[in-house]
Amino acid sequence: MNKKPIVDFNDETNPFLIAVSISNKHLHLSRADVETLFGEGYQLTVKKMLSQPGQFAAEECVKLVGPKGSIDNLRIIGPERKQTQIELAQTDARQVGIKAALRESGDVEASGACKLIGPAGEVELNEGVIIAKTHIHLSAAEAEEMGLENGELIDLYFGGDKPMMLFDVIVRSGAGHQKDIHIDTDEANAAQYANGQKALVIKHV
Amino acid sequence: MNKKPIVDFNDETNPFLIAVSISNKHLHLSRADVETLFGEGYQLTVKKMLSQPGQFAAEECVKLVGPKGSIDNLRIIGPERKQTQIELAQTDARQVGIKAALRESGDVEASGACKLIGPAGEVELNEGVIIAKTHIHLSAAEAEEMGLENGELIDLYFGGDKPMMLFDVIVRSGAGHQKDIHIDTDEANAAQYANGQKALVIKHV
Repeated sequence: MNKKPIVDFNDETNPFLIAVSISNKHLHLSRADVETLFGEGYQLTVKKMLSQPGQFAAEECVKLVGPKGSIDNLRIIGPERKQTQIELAQTDARQVGIKAALRESGDVEASGACKLIGPAGEVELNEGVIIAKTHIHLSAAEAEEMGLENGELIDLYFGGDKPMMLFDVIVRSGAGHQKDIHIDTDEANAAQYANGQKALVIKHV
Repeated sequence: MNKKPIVDFNDETNPFLIAVSISNKHLHLSRADVETLFGEGYQLTVKKMLSQPGQFAAEECVKLVGPKGSIDNLRIIGPERKQTQIELAQTDARQVGIKAALRESGDVEASGACKLIGPAGEVELNEGVIIAKTHIHLSAAEAEEMGLENGELIDLYFGGDKPMMLFDVIVRSGAGHQKDIHIDTDEANAAQYANGQKALVIKHV
């Protein structure tokens, strides 16, 4: 009981084994904040397309300033969103002294405050800094194959030299999603996982 | 199956609920390295006694330099040891570009390299930088009460908003040990745990 699961991580046919994508600290910007930070009419430049359809790492970065320190070159992830959202790991948030809220993406009300500095200006945010709740992405077909639904909670098992389980991880599936496990740098480093290593999805029964 | 354990974290009578001590990055120094870094005959100053008998945080710090960055004010933990040992979390090691080895304390052969800089001199280390394997400390009496032995592996469950389990954690018990769970900052931050919060020890069956 409560011992680690037995799983062959090399089994290519097991749909419950999914490669992890490690989310480094990053931010999403609103149109208004892009213009304040980079100038009127400015458009973000695609540096690299990401695993989730339409999402990209931008060439542009900003500086984030908190009460206890700052982060230079915080990467912007496009496209623009309705509201600016900064996603840090707890380690990052502690280093700059920001009380980031543990939230699902998009839920930034009354989350952490910070200042952003770009080449054309600065933005003072009263809210927007979150620690993203761990989640997995699945297309509708992938979710169906695995017998999982959007919003369902699963557990994730990480093998290797520092075996770890994360419980109650949210499934996000449907249009615009594709098979992927998103963990932050604290979770990856706690298990000594690198990008592309597989974790096991465990359905609640 | 594989769902998180059900436990009342407020049950003061449960000996398997133990408060965690979060080990921030730190180092232990040999006599020779104390003398090189701080001067001949130098003695470390006690700043604060720690939970394990005889262990103390020293007033003194050193600067650690790796290939990709440095850490100012890395805290020394006394007393001196036979061999210098630097304990980082994976996040710290990545930030300074050091390949730290996952090891039990004291096992530094062929572990990570770094340079240390003190007020009186510098030390180039070919080995010594480790990520400490997660472990718990128990006195002989505490281990007996829990039915655990020195060297035995247990699992650790962390509750709260980011429930997490670490598997195959080592029990260290006997003289010089006292009830304590030692996790590093990556593990603490992955579970959003603070010093003194309790985790559940789960015996392998």
